[in-house]
Amino acid sequence: MTFSLKQYFATRSEEINACLDRLLPTVGTPPSLLHEAMRYSLFAGGKRLRPILVLAAGEALEGNREYLLPVGCAFEMLHTYSLIHDDLPAMDNDDLRRGMPTCHRKFGDAVAILAGDALLTRAFQVLAELEVPPVLLERKVQVIVELAQGGGTVEGMIGGQMADIAAEGKAVDAETLAYIHRSKTGALIRAAVVSGGLMAGASEAEIATLRRYAECIGLAFQIADDILDVTSTAEALGKTPGKDVAAGKATYPALFGLEASRVKAQALVDEAVALVEPLGRQKEILVALARFIVERPS
Amino acid sequence: MTFSLKQYFATRSEEINACLDRLLPTVGTPPSLLHEAMRYSLFAGGKRLRPILVLAAGEALEGNREYLLPVGCAFEMLHTYSLIHDDLPAMDNDDLRRGMPTCHRKFGDAVAILAGDALLTRAFQVLAELEVPPVLLERKVQVIVELAQGGGTVEGMIGGQMADIAAEGKAVDAETLAYIHRSKTGALIRAAVVSGGLMAGASEAEIATLRRYAECIGLAFQIADDILDVTSTAEALGKTPGKDVAAGKATYPALFGLEASRVKAQALVDEAVALVEPLGRQKEILVALARFIVERPS
Repeated sequence: MTFSLKQYFATRSEEINACLDRLLPTVGTPPSLLHEAMRYSLFAGGKRLRPILVLAAGEALEGNREYLLPVGCAFEMLHTYSLIHDDLPAMDNDDLRRGMPTCHRKFGDAVAILAGDALLTRAFQVLAELEVPPVLLERKVQVIVELAQGGGTVEGMIGGQMADIAAEGKAVDAETLAYIHRSKTGALIRAAVVSGGLMAGASEAEIATLRRYAECIGLAFQIADDILDVTSTAEALGKTPGKDVAAGKATYPALFGLEASRVKAQALVDEAVALVEPLGRQKEILVALARFIVERPS
Repeated sequence: MTFSLKQYFATRSEEINACLDRLLPTVGTPPSLLHEAMRYSLFAGGKRLRPILVLAAGEALEGNREYLLPVGCAFEMLHTYSLIHDDLPAMDNDDLRRGMPTCHRKFGDAVAILAGDALLTRAFQVLAELEVPPVLLERKVQVIVELAQGGGTVEGMIGGQMADIAAEGKAVDAETLAYIHRSKTGALIRAAVVSGGLMAGASEAEIATLRRYAECIGLAFQIADDILDVTSTAEALGKTPGKDVAAGKATYPALFGLEASRVKAQALVDEAVALVEPLGRQKEILVALARFIVERPS
């Protein structure tokens, strides 16, 4: 029986969505409009890549989904807040996200700012409130550290976004581009994978392996994203393509060319696949995920 | 020897500022501009009321300042993020804060949004990374819950801000005003006081007392703030006065009149003072703080 990543995404996404629904206040809870905005962006059809990474890493080490799922949801909340804020007029000024109006286009700038703040806050609340056995308490705190570092300013997501904005319209060297990629998308992907391992009780050696695996697929993911911005259509992408180029943003294809970018992404995936070879019998999820990263159509 | 609150504020503020400085990345750490913006708003001369409340509650129960200080700093970071985002053009559109240009006026909207996000994220990181003895580990996690709930949407700071925005220019009833006051300012003040108690190993009964004490002074604080907006000058206030009235915002004086508001604030302070009577010998800090809340000049 071969492992089907499509099947894995389908079943797990359903569990993730149900868990997200449980972990968020209902729309009826005041202030209703804010909870509606949070849910609008959270349930706008994202791929759930970060929670899937938490689950995949955790399940590879036979962790308990009861704890992995809420941890994954916290990462999805943090990811979603970053999309809402990045789309704001003062930032990327995007009207479309996954083919739908962005949060601020639908609810106004003030509500979008607050909905982002609220999802960020909620992500940490979900982790802190998660009931775990005593043996996992310290691990849970480490996950909070991972989420905060991955989403933070020093080699983290906010730092990457800041560097990305600062680099707009400027000639960017390879070092700056590497920093942006590593921080803006890579840091949170790495934190998600590591957190899955932490909640599964991984050894230090296993955590180190997961960390390096995640660095490879994180960079491959960002290169693939840059490539898609050049080659895809608005329909397939669900957002305006070519925006990076138009904005004079630093991208891998702009710096190294399309073909070299594809080769680099593939090499990273190969390294990631080789890395997880010694992990348990469930490692095929991680292998398939690494391959998916560069092969996804949008 | 009588207790001097002025002296207490002076010595503790110095310790808080030194701790904040240690807990934030230096300006030289990339991305520099972002760290500069975070520090600009954090060191803009705030009264440090929330960290002082953490310390006062914790010290009343003979807690260790080594743990109370970083917890207080996390609350100050969260408070500062909320000021930065509330000042944005899409929200209150304020040019001045504590007599200085607001963060977005100084660094631009994009940097201000990210600096706010970063301070919020950092607040949780500081708590999660705080090294405590095993007996305080669960307490530390409870503090993270308090911070997230106090800063959250359901009866929390963001919920209060949202309700405040929604109420602008509308006739607001007493119930809505109570919700706004309880959530927007009160929730975080309560969380700060309770967190001080938690880190000092307070009993459940002591936590309950601190919680009620904080609810009293939190509401008194907000009423005093509303009164100041009517009666103060720009110089004393460090920001534009009368803005609440101009914006048609719900305030206590607008709903109940100035004199009734003063009476209510004083009654709350009296209740708070009576509540902490049974607490330990250091309770005079909490007593003095309660009185300060309504007597502060600005």
